[in-house]
Amino acid sequence: MSNNKGIPARAENYSEWYNELVKKADLAEHSAVKGCMVIKPYGYAIWEKMQAQLDKIFKDTGHSNAYFPLFVPKSFLEKEEGHAEGFAKECAVVTHYRLKADPNEKGKLIADPDSRLDEELIVRPTSEAVIWNTYRNWIQSYRDLPLLINQWANVVRWEMRTRLFLRTTEFLWQEGHTAHATKAEAIEETERMLHVYAEFAEKHLAVPVIRGIKTENEKFAGAETTYCIEALMQNGWALQAGTSHFLGQNFAKAFDVRFTTREGTQDLVWGTSWGVSTRLMGALIMAHSDDEGLVLPPGLAPIQVVIVPIYRSEEELARVTAQALEIKAELQKAGISVRYDDRDTLRPGFKFAEWELKGVPVRLALGPKDLDNGTIEVARRDLKTKEVLPLATVAQHVPTLLAAIHDQIYTKALTYRDSHITPVNSYDEFKQVLETKGGFIAAHWDGDFATADRIKDETKATIRCIPLGNPAELGTCMVTGRPSQQRVLFARAY
Amino acid sequence: MSNNKGIPARAENYSEWYNELVKKADLAEHSAVKGCMVIKPYGYAIWEKMQAQLDKIFKDTGHSNAYFPLFVPKSFLEKEEGHAEGFAKECAVVTHYRLKADPNEKGKLIADPDSRLDEELIVRPTSEAVIWNTYRNWIQSYRDLPLLINQWANVVRWEMRTRLFLRTTEFLWQEGHTAHATKAEAIEETERMLHVYAEFAEKHLAVPVIRGIKTENEKFAGAETTYCIEALMQNGWALQAGTSHFLGQNFAKAFDVRFTTREGTQDLVWGTSWGVSTRLMGALIMAHSDDEGLVLPPGLAPIQVVIVPIYRSEEELARVTAQALEIKAELQKAGISVRYDDRDTLRPGFKFAEWELKGVPVRLALGPKDLDNGTIEVARRDLKTKEVLPLATVAQHVPTLLAAIHDQIYTKALTYRDSHITPVNSYDEFKQVLETKGGFIAAHWDGDFATADRIKDETKATIRCIPLGNPAELGTCMVTGRPSQQRVLFARAY
Repeated sequence: MSNNKGIPARAENYSEWYNELVKKADLAEHSAVKGCMVIKPYGYAIWEKMQAQLDKIFKDTGHSNAYFPLFVPKSFLEKEEGHAEGFAKECAVVTHYRLKADPNEKGKLIADPDSRLDEELIVRPTSEAVIWNTYRNWIQSYRDLPLLINQWANVVRWEMRTRLFLRTTEFLWQEGHTAHATKAEAIEETERMLHVYAEFAEKHLAVPVIRGIKTENEKFAGAETTYCIEALMQNGWALQAGTSHFLGQNFAKAFDVRFTTREGTQDLVWGTSWGVSTRLMGALIMAHSDDEGLVLPPGLAPIQVVIVPIYRSEEELARVTAQALEIKAELQKAGISVRYDDRDTLRPGFKFAEWELKGVPVRLALGPKDLDNGTIEVARRDLKTKEVLPLATVAQHVPTLLAAIHDQIYTKALTYRDSHITPVNSYDEFKQVLETKGGFIAAHWDGDFATADRIKDETKATIRCIPLGNPAELGTCMVTGRPSQQRVLFARAY
Repeated sequence: MSNNKGIPARAENYSEWYNELVKKADLAEHSAVKGCMVIKPYGYAIWEKMQAQLDKIFKDTGHSNAYFPLFVPKSFLEKEEGHAEGFAKECAVVTHYRLKADPNEKGKLIADPDSRLDEELIVRPTSEAVIWNTYRNWIQSYRDLPLLINQWANVVRWEMRTRLFLRTTEFLWQEGHTAHATKAEAIEETERMLHVYAEFAEKHLAVPVIRGIKTENEKFAGAETTYCIEALMQNGWALQAGTSHFLGQNFAKAFDVRFTTREGTQDLVWGTSWGVSTRLMGALIMAHSDDEGLVLPPGLAPIQVVIVPIYRSEEELARVTAQALEIKAELQKAGISVRYDDRDTLRPGFKFAEWELKGVPVRLALGPKDLDNGTIEVARRDLKTKEVLPLATVAQHVPTLLAAIHDQIYTKALTYRDSHITPVNSYDEFKQVLETKGGFIAAHWDGDFATADRIKDETKATIRCIPLGNPAELGTCMVTGRPSQQRVLFARAY
């Protein structure tokens, strides 16, 4: 144990560090329903901030929210072949619509056999099928395009091995579904939303990401091309943080969505879809936090500043409180969320540790000596440094400090990430870098999925993406020696 | 038909008027999944405003949001007997977690028999069971109380006869679930949230409501007492717009949720739950709208002001546009949402009708003559009046006008409601009022549910509630002549 919070050190057991941190910081916990999580108030408050900030960006880029049914008729899923194959194995299936008293056991219920559905309903693993079936009625003419819609929803993909936020059977997400008159417009939208996600990750989560394209084998079931953003965690593992899919005319074909062009001809509609999920919570936690607890970028912290009073008597507390509330009010006026922690049964040291665990970016401590000296102690969570500042300037100082904390967190993650993209020229070197250093490895690959599968089986590393703007570079596959046109990025990944 | 929008007049067919209005105003439509609706962008924009405004009130009253699983294990539902009985008949049941290729038909899928769940999962009809099972681990001591949590979620209750917003198999809602150390505190919370709902209905939806208590037969399955708010629609039917339940210790007993009191003893926790749903959209639409379309209170209107240019040439349009954009900017600065409708393929009359249908509270029309005269035409949706005002004052005038529109809509609904609470003293009079006037009928009832059932069978009217602060009044039941302590409110209801 590296601390008194019951959380192992990252170096000791990164995986357990994450699991314990998520629980101890009150972010989420496993529910009694296998694979499903409970998002606790403190974790949900962070997710709400992500939602609100992303939602604003979606609206600023011309999208509207709507809501489509939770259930997908089985026959809808069958319509796009690749889509069906991709999702069939992880579908929760509703077969009955009523329970009745169990005739064999008092107080127990059974699915009423008389309520069996003619056609099973699938709990949506994603909504392309149900949405494109709806778009058929919404789109007649080029005047109805583009159609730019987003949905905030829960989805279910049955998972055998789950981890809080990173992989759960039910998760929360947003899914954008757009329809366009031309291929070029649809590709432009796919790329626009990739960049929206990348900027959101960098400017809001303070997590640098690589923008790239998935290989054919890793693309979304039903897409022509899948774009992705890939982040790097502190243990050198990658994490796919968002995807944006160019769907071509696949779903338009499957659901017969046609429109009259400006020239009066009939054409199939072009589509995109794109999504990020509560998985971003996992990325946020893993990218920045340390052995003492969460480290949160100030823009997503539910509490940005905590003020802890130091006192030995009621009189001292009264004096300190008067000053603390003044500072709190001033900071709140500047739009900063502040908690004054005057719980009287806990010692300051306990409070310091708790707010450290919860990742509050700035901690102010104020005692009677500070009042006498006109000072206040200002501690920043990210660097664990503290300084004594004049009371009179603290309210002006904090906004600057919060911005500096964001920059520091981002720069630290960026420096780590940039120093963990390693080009290698042989499979031995590849394995060695993977074991000793981790991170992204840029290597030549022959484009054969059998080779990629072999690499995965032998090393657990997968192709994360082909970065946008990847330079052409002739070489030979590190495994087979066959020719290759460019390096691709490998990593072990969540 | 009363208009050229394809919507019947209210007087002609109120029910069809509602159905067509919901579709024509682009609020929602039936989906391909039986009983489930698609909430379209314009409808969702109104729901989002309701959500944001309610969410702020919940937070201001000390509640935090969290998220609990979509699925409820069947055995959880069985634990509270009344709860199980109340919901068993409308449960969507998940029995399998995987599909596989149908061996008998290429391209088709079947639920994989090998993926049958040991225990069926119910798609939540409400979350008391799953939440109280979680609370058992969250609550140990009086220090953990009160626990004040809200969830925004989708729920599923299988309905045989559905109507958009009013009764759908899947709907969106919020459900508050709180836990308290004492009975008095729990009742106080139940009543607090009832008043929150009532004020929200009145101040945000502009819908006056009666605050009351449900009879034993109509209370929530699992509650000790159900409080409700009841609104009156323009056809004289009532609509239950929100409920707040005092759960007693029922769920604490069922899920063994105990806490150590301040005195060191063990006690069962007291609970409440409360919810409003997308049903509020139905109340909003039915309470105010007219034969020309939606009438929206300005605070919930996605577009509060529309500006329509009047012009015959490109030059005129350019002049008008310059002025219109100036007004738009000024109004936006005041926090008002404005749409400048310069679509060039549509005539002003068409635009007027469209924005009338969509319920935009204020319409400004601006032409070259207005520019010459320094005037602008201001039309209000609620009264369908218009006036010509000086251009220079319009930006100051609009906020006042929006407030006046809210007040007018509310007052109109209140006047209607107040004139439709009719005391009757005989069953004949009851039937006559029901047929000729509708609304709430205050009548004596003997407290016997057989009597209530007979009244329902014979008249389709049900007991809506016993209003809070209902005066004691000795009388005799209008049906049986047996003694009664007070009048209760009857109505036909959605």
